[in-house]
Amino acid sequence: MKAAKVNLASKLAQFHDHWKPRTVAELNEYDIMVVKVQGEFVWHKHDNTDDFFLVLDGQLEVRLRDRTVVLGPGELFVVPRGVEHQTYAEQEASLLLIEPTGTPNTGDARTAAPRQEL
Amino acid sequence: MKAAKVNLASKLAQFHDHWKPRTVAELNEYDIMVVKVQGEFVWHKHDNTDDFFLVLDGQLEVRLRDRTVVLGPGELFVVPRGVEHQTYAEQEASLLLIEPTGTPNTGDARTAAPRQEL
Repeated sequence: MKAAKVNLASKLAQFHDHWKPRTVAELNEYDIMVVKVQGEFVWHKHDNTDDFFLVLDGQLEVRLRDRTVVLGPGELFVVPRGVEHQTYAEQEASLLLIEPTGTPNTGDARTAAPRQEL
Repeated sequence: MKAAKVNLASKLAQFHDHWKPRTVAELNEYDIMVVKVQGEFVWHKHDNTDDFFLVLDGQLEVRLRDRTVVLGPGELFVVPRGVEHQTYAEQEASLLLIEPTGTPNTGDARTAAPRQEL
């Protein structure tokens, strides 16, 4: 998997569900993932890792307890570890995510989407 | 630095030199960097880390000893650790790079570009 070129648009064309990240490449002990989102995710935090979001298409709100960061295509934001956040997209948006392999997307393994490769 | 939104195009508009990555965000112990490239880089390898390239603008050749991977905008490639590679861009290209903080871009601290934040 590591040595193949990845076209992000082609990967995104292969699925349509929301909030289910797909791993498209690996970088050391990290997963490079794409995901489609729409609507509101649960408030959560990751105690052991920062959380990287890069918008590929659409618009994403990253809501923090004290402010909201609005991201468009070509904009990225890293939520520091331990900081509560909620992501929201009024219309469907596509994102690139980078997280240590095995990080639960909800911050809680019991409610997390399973790891999926694409 | 970690908690600011990053617009990649705005960051890229702030410099014009080639092969000098700028750190625009941090993710755990990794630097998220943008770089402009044109022409040919040196053949090198990283023994202790994979090497991530995402093309933002233009076209990049990642030359390996046995093949060449050609990347356009929205395409990424991860060179596995220990694999020799040479990057080449006929016209100027802009890239997103992700590497453990302190990784020398040439694979050799003696010839590497210094870490620069932007």
